Amino acid sequence: MEPNANNNMHPDNCLGITPMEVHKVVPPPHRSTIQKLKSKLKETFFPDDPLLQFKRQPLGKKWILAAQYVFPILQWGPNYSFKLFKSDIVSGLTIASLAIPQGISYAKLASLPPIVGLYSSFVPPLVYAVLGSSRDLAVGPVSIASLILGSMLRQKVSPINDPLLFLQLAFSSTFFAGLFQASLGLLRLGFIIDFLSKAILIGFMAGAAVIVSLQQLKSLLGITHFTKQMGLVPVLSSAFHNINESMRKPKLFWVSAGAPLLSVILSTILVFAFKAQHHGISVIGKLQEGLNPPSWNMLHFHGSNLGLVIKTGLVTGIISLTEGIAVGRTFAALKNYQVDGNKEMMAIGLMNVIGSATSCYVTTGAFSRSAVNHNAGAKTAVSNVVMSVTVMVTLLFLMPLFQYTPNVVLGAIIVTAVIGLIDFPAACQIWKIDKFDFVVMLCAFFGVVFISVQDGLAIAVAISIFKILLQVTRPKTLVLGNIPGTDIFRNLHHYKDATRIPGFLILSIEAPINFANTTYLKERILRWINEYETEEDIKKQSSIHFLILDLSAVSAIDTSGVSLFKDLKKAVENKGVEASAWHLNCLFFSILVLVNPVGEVLEKLLRADDARDIMGPDTLYLTVGEAVAALSSTMKGQSSSYV
Amino acid sequence: MEPNANNNMHPDNCLGITPMEVHKVVPPPHRSTIQKLKSKLKETFFPDDPLLQFKRQPLGKKWILAAQYVFPILQWGPNYSFKLFKSDIVSGLTIASLAIPQGISYAKLASLPPIVGLYSSFVPPLVYAVLGSSRDLAVGPVSIASLILGSMLRQKVSPINDPLLFLQLAFSSTFFAGLFQASLGLLRLGFIIDFLSKAILIGFMAGAAVIVSLQQLKSLLGITHFTKQMGLVPVLSSAFHNINESMRKPKLFWVSAGAPLLSVILSTILVFAFKAQHHGISVIGKLQEGLNPPSWNMLHFHGSNLGLVIKTGLVTGIISLTEGIAVGRTFAALKNYQVDGNKEMMAIGLMNVIGSATSCYVTTGAFSRSAVNHNAGAKTAVSNVVMSVTVMVTLLFLMPLFQYTPNVVLGAIIVTAVIGLIDFPAACQIWKIDKFDFVVMLCAFFGVVFISVQDGLAIAVAISIFKILLQVTRPKTLVLGNIPGTDIFRNLHHYKDATRIPGFLILSIEAPINFANTTYLKERILRWINEYETEEDIKKQSSIHFLILDLSAVSAIDTSGVSLFKDLKKAVENKGVEASAWHLNCLFFSILVLVNPVGEVLEKLLRADDARDIMGPDTLYLTVGEAVAALSSTMKGQSSSYV
Repeated sequence: MEPNANNNMHPDNCLGITPMEVHKVVPPPHRSTIQKLKSKLKETFFPDDPLLQFKRQPLGKKWILAAQYVFPILQWGPNYSFKLFKSDIVSGLTIASLAIPQGISYAKLASLPPIVGLYSSFVPPLVYAVLGSSRDLAVGPVSIASLILGSMLRQKVSPINDPLLFLQLAFSSTFFAGLFQASLGLLRLGFIIDFLSKAILIGFMAGAAVIVSLQQLKSLLGITHFTKQMGLVPVLSSAFHNINESMRKPKLFWVSAGAPLLSVILSTILVFAFKAQHHGISVIGKLQEGLNPPSWNMLHFHGSNLGLVIKTGLVTGIISLTEGIAVGRTFAALKNYQVDGNKEMMAIGLMNVIGSATSCYVTTGAFSRSAVNHNAGAKTAVSNVVMSVTVMVTLLFLMPLFQYTPNVVLGAIIVTAVIGLIDFPAACQIWKIDKFDFVVMLCAFFGVVFISVQDGLAIAVAISIFKILLQVTRPKTLVLGNIPGTDIFRNLHHYKDATRIPGFLILSIEAPINFANTTYLKERILRWINEYETEEDIKKQSSIHFLILDLSAVSAIDTSGVSLFKDLKKAVENKGVEASAWHLNCLFFSILVLVNPVGEVLEKLLRADDARDIMGPDTLYLTVGEAVAALSSTMKGQSSSYV
Repeated sequence: MEPNANNNMHPDNCLGITPMEVHKVVPPPHRSTIQKLKSKLKETFFPDDPLLQFKRQPLGKKWILAAQYVFPILQWGPNYSFKLFKSDIVSGLTIASLAIPQGISYAKLASLPPIVGLYSSFVPPLVYAVLGSSRDLAVGPVSIASLILGSMLRQKVSPINDPLLFLQLAFSSTFFAGLFQASLGLLRLGFIIDFLSKAILIGFMAGAAVIVSLQQLKSLLGITHFTKQMGLVPVLSSAFHNINESMRKPKLFWVSAGAPLLSVILSTILVFAFKAQHHGISVIGKLQEGLNPPSWNMLHFHGSNLGLVIKTGLVTGIISLTEGIAVGRTFAALKNYQVDGNKEMMAIGLMNVIGSATSCYVTTGAFSRSAVNHNAGAKTAVSNVVMSVTVMVTLLFLMPLFQYTPNVVLGAIIVTAVIGLIDFPAACQIWKIDKFDFVVMLCAFFGVVFISVQDGLAIAVAISIFKILLQVTRPKTLVLGNIPGTDIFRNLHHYKDATRIPGFLILSIEAPINFANTTYLKERILRWINEYETEEDIKKQSSIHFLILDLSAVSAIDTSGVSLFKDLKKAVENKGVEASAWHLNCLFFSILVLVNPVGEVLEKLLRADDARDIMGPDTLYLTVGEAVAALSSTMKGQSSSYV
């Protein structure tokens, strides 16, 4: 503990500054351009400093750490115990019972053969178990990505007329989705998924849920006529409604976890027993037995559909990545461990690249299944392995059992899953906190429902970015006033007891100054001056002597920003000349004063050719309080008649 | 003058705060959503408050002011005097002597008939004289916009094979340029031109200058063989070199102002005298006499070229608008009067719409001609009228005189004008102040030279916006330390005498918190905590008791931002629990403390469902100094053994 720091804690010493004690504003310690660039790159791309753990380690240890970094399984694998395995096997079997019916259903949602959904629940979980760092993620196909994949590819190719081409395009899109995801992680550009804000996702998922439900309802209603006799649909949908409710209550989660498989089994038995397939109930039909066939020869890297598969890969890749990362982070926060976003992206990306070569389509960490996994007591990624083995057994031996599964039950499974995506309480919360976010959410919702999935997303993201740009181009300027009895200066329009100091206009600029806002800031500040003078003129013949700009919140500046200060200085001095001309007997002066520029801003201001013009000896202070105290004594000396 | 404010200026009263005197953070005065929206819209679109002058005025006066607002000529017209006219006639004739040769030259640069350049120097200046608010702007065709118009239209239509269609497209592009400019002004979206930063413009203009010069040199060199005998080219180019130099020196500006016309006259006489047109010197040839023919029937509003003309209109419109506004602002600042950006946009836009119907192509305020106008003593827009009348006389009676003007002298005029656009000192200044701006400048330069005018601009603008987004997605977090003997807290890495206070980690977040940076901020702040603990652990067994976040610079927040504080609070409290588990005998605690949230941020935090969770009684302070003073006494009481 430094002795100085300790002293500050004594009440009588802490604020021993007198008004005339002025602290100098000094430029920050010199760093070369290279050093600056290096630290900027580090802050931009390595905020979590992944190499920190490698520091001060012997070489052998470094290799082990590196291997553990690439394959997290090496980290937890050696300590794996039978006790953990017992938990994992229960949760693994539980999510398998979800994954099998959901896999078949989601594949149908993507207009793919049902078996592809099962393939996608076999290989990717194994890959993730080796590479992934989340302990709770249950990997497999998800509804949203399936919906997008299907709807984007259907725009150009019909899955009914040309099923083989459609399958090839789906695998190719999966390849590009994986490639894109892995690249984002490798290039540490993960922040791109941050642009899908929570508001966008809530609107988007609700919109997607509406679309999917309408699609499925159409087919559900189309067969109502035939199924009414058995009351299958009403029974199922009310059952699922209850299940959906119970999903939110961990205690009843076994019901929600078991229901889809139970429904499939029950409905299959019913269809088989009543031979309902001959009475208009459409069933899945014969499925091929056996494990994933290789599919790398089906990938399209050229030809007329390349643009389509790249675009589809990008959109499904970013959407499924967003879901996977969000799920991983949510459960990591619950269990208080860290998930490295960029590492996860590489794991999910590789999983999809390998998947695309083994007849799998886009997979990621599914929210609902991961929740079940977590609640069933999953401890490590071994639960994914257990699920994968269960799916393998199904693929090898149990496929004939699905022959009589009615399609309608798959539709119900889909609707149940997606209806759960509509999050009204979150929407209400957004409305309460931020109206603009709510508008963005509505744009995403209506865009997805009425235009298309990718355009709805693009519109919402564009509006969000526009809002950020608007914040930058129209930064806030606050007028500060003194809180009586202190040297604290705060926003006049926020703290009602803050008071103006005559002759001073104190503004705080609340954004980096750059080309996009220099003009605005100049206009706005000149308007503050005019308003101030109009106001003061009515009260008494006073004019601005000091324009104090508090730059504490100006985190960066560029060449245009530097010129702003030159222009303002000139404008302020002209005001002084004008005022002197009006009040003939008295010399007026107006001075621009800067307070607390941060390191980078100060450096750039000093580097300008006319730095001395902008920052004279009495025009740079460390705090507003010191500036006012020092300058008000000057003012009293020179034009006392007006103050 | 409020009595309180005055009291604060007494030295003994100014800083009378004791460490334990804590000022409450209160929410700002309540305003309804509509009020907030209204004030936000006003700040965004009416920063200059154009309606301010209408306040507290009788109705009749309001009408007069409104008319003067729309037609600035009504403002200065009634006070116009013969003395002003004498100045204006001199400057008007001077710029006419520039406008005639430059008009012909720039029209050729745009691949248009030379006479269109003269037409464009007749009608638009008259329109501007009525609507424009700048007193120094010399209106007419400019080199950059001519270059872009020509090069964009030539991509699809050949001016040699299909001159009529080319002309029609040029007029149509002019129409859309004007429409776009006027709309920007009317919708108060003028900030869009701010995105063309100074760095971009310098790079862009230098690139354009290189392209134009190379184009012209090719034709200049092509005839060197023939002209060598007369030494015309060497003479002219050395003459122009000198002129270009003298442009920077106002005293010699008569030389630069008169040189182009003089060159044209001299070279025309020489060609005529020596009958050089028969010896390989290409000349303009016969030009049609008479004023602008109407051209509204030539505008294309449909058909296959509509996309091209709209795109060309957009690019030329925004570029010429940028030049016009920049020129207007520069000279207004020199003479200390105000130019209303949005009004100017409407004036320039209407000028081009009317121009497109009267055989004119894109015009704006030209920098070089406006400088000559200013130096020649122009007082009002009447100098534009004088120029216009001179051009009219030329069009009516003097056209035959240009028959023998050699094309080479037009090329020389163009090269001279564009070489002056390369601004090396400004480029050096940019390099000195901001390296990133320099990179943007280079991108604009090389983009224009090696790709195309519009793509070069687009790339440079995209990079600039990307930089802004990067600043927002990767905001700075500064670690603050106490400046000994004060209650001032400043960046530890900037002020070397600032010291850490044990048990406290004080961070200042330097940007609005939103969806795009929430994840980053969380990661970065957790890393600060880890680094702090690693560092402190080595020195002595100390842990963080208080994480203080200074939110003074956080100007806005959204729903994602609100959740950041929930997550941080949880993470910080977990740290405390962990620390307690390690140091068994001592109860540790870690608390998240917020300092000085601005009004909007505080309101949104309070509106969150779990506001009380985030901001407990002892976790919200007005200044860092007060927070540290109040909390350090708590800390001493509870875990004194560690501090």
